[in-house]
Amino acid sequence: MAVIGIGLIGGSFALAGRQAGVLGEVVGVARSERTLLEAQHVGAADRTTADPVEAVREAELVFIATPVAAIPDVFERIAPALADGCVVTDAGSTKRAIMDAAGALPGHVDFVGGHPMAGSERAGVMAARANLFRGRTWLLTPGAASPEAVARLRGAIEAIGARVVTVDAAEHDRIVARTSHLPHVVAAALAGALGECCGEDDFIGNGVRDTTRIASGSAEVWREILLTNADDVLAALAEFSAEVERYRSALAAGDEATLTALLEAARACRGRMAEP
Amino acid sequence: MAVIGIGLIGGSFALAGRQAGVLGEVVGVARSERTLLEAQHVGAADRTTADPVEAVREAELVFIATPVAAIPDVFERIAPALADGCVVTDAGSTKRAIMDAAGALPGHVDFVGGHPMAGSERAGVMAARANLFRGRTWLLTPGAASPEAVARLRGAIEAIGARVVTVDAAEHDRIVARTSHLPHVVAAALAGALGECCGEDDFIGNGVRDTTRIASGSAEVWREILLTNADDVLAALAEFSAEVERYRSALAAGDEATLTALLEAARACRGRMAEP
Repeated sequence: MAVIGIGLIGGSFALAGRQAGVLGEVVGVARSERTLLEAQHVGAADRTTADPVEAVREAELVFIATPVAAIPDVFERIAPALADGCVVTDAGSTKRAIMDAAGALPGHVDFVGGHPMAGSERAGVMAARANLFRGRTWLLTPGAASPEAVARLRGAIEAIGARVVTVDAAEHDRIVARTSHLPHVVAAALAGALGECCGEDDFIGNGVRDTTRIASGSAEVWREILLTNADDVLAALAEFSAEVERYRSALAAGDEATLTALLEAARACRGRMAEP
Repeated sequence: MAVIGIGLIGGSFALAGRQAGVLGEVVGVARSERTLLEAQHVGAADRTTADPVEAVREAELVFIATPVAAIPDVFERIAPALADGCVVTDAGSTKRAIMDAAGALPGHVDFVGGHPMAGSERAGVMAARANLFRGRTWLLTPGAASPEAVARLRGAIEAIGARVVTVDAAEHDRIVARTSHLPHVVAAALAGALGECCGEDDFIGNGVRDTTRIASGSAEVWREILLTNADDVLAALAEFSAEVERYRSALAAGDEATLTALLEAARACRGRMAEP
């Protein structure tokens, strides 16, 4: 197997798969020499290289775990070198743009889109751990891939303890726009609007800490995610802004009944959310 | 001391103060017989009564820990029964309305507004614990209270391990509108806008869980808090909506530079927030 972009996600998958004995030889790929040394240090790869083309030449499974905007370039570069029957997958947070870009891959390989629902505030292969995906959901968007290819990938993912759920790419993007991308915009807009108030230590409690926590994520990573799913995120943002306007209007009017109804409905929605 | 409204906050203060030996006899007041029994069961009060007037008659310290909207009524009821030199305080999350309402108290007592920065998802005296305020900030708005009264209250609060910070009531309300009330509206509006998506278990990660967590709070409690601080909350909400509009406009235009700048600024703001 080749892991292109051997950071937190790629490294954790490799560690877990090697422990489970389902991956054969793992070749780790990264641009920086330091990351390659770290990947070997933590035991995430049997060997490493900065050249994705060389890495994929004999691979039966290629796992692309780079930032989402880099994936189409990786497709272009590795396409001529992929072996017959190779299964290619990724870990990008949006799926339609990537499924489209996968058209650049040759007909003798199968591409299955992937999105593991796991992560960490920490990034990089030094933060990788074999149990990162244990008990977590791993979404797959099979597209035109053969059932055999999907089954092979599913087998490897289930072997490391994750739960595979297949979903249409458009449906995937529509839902994650709401359950992941909108919350990020909201948390970031809240942190930005608070500005100087973030430093008012005496007034900072757990509520505002929780509500803004994900605003600490990488600006580059999130810019890419938001831009590759802009239409769905904009639709979700419009729904959110309409709801904020309901609160504003009820507050401005001193409308107790409407405010209570809004807060009760929000409480009920939050109560439907599965806890880990 | 009398604790009027002996729930999570009142009960925890009483437990901690009794352990520290700084409160003398504690009389717990609540409307429901069940709460009174529970308060005795957990050791939060020496004796209990449903009658606040009877409870305050010989008290040197009166701690009002009812929901914020009930506090002005409590002032009216206990005013005729308060002893000379009594110090009255509260635990309401907004302070201007309460400082105004405290004008109903007689001239021979001192009112010091209070706002302990601690809480729990759980409510009620059964969730009370002596260490709830340990290491936490306890905001005081002294208003026209005598320095001696403020010092007495400060002594009791510091004896249970909290850190006292005094602040002007208007300044208090302006800041908590941003660090507490706005985050609540934002989290609730997000949970409400997500609606059915909250039940999409396969797509729910820790990010959206954190961002919406406080939407689980009591609708009645939060309606009262928001309405007693409506002008400051509306101003904060306008700042937030302007920031959301910056994200919307950058996303709609595919403006990478602006989106990165917004996300970087948000990340920097969140980084200024003190961790507990």
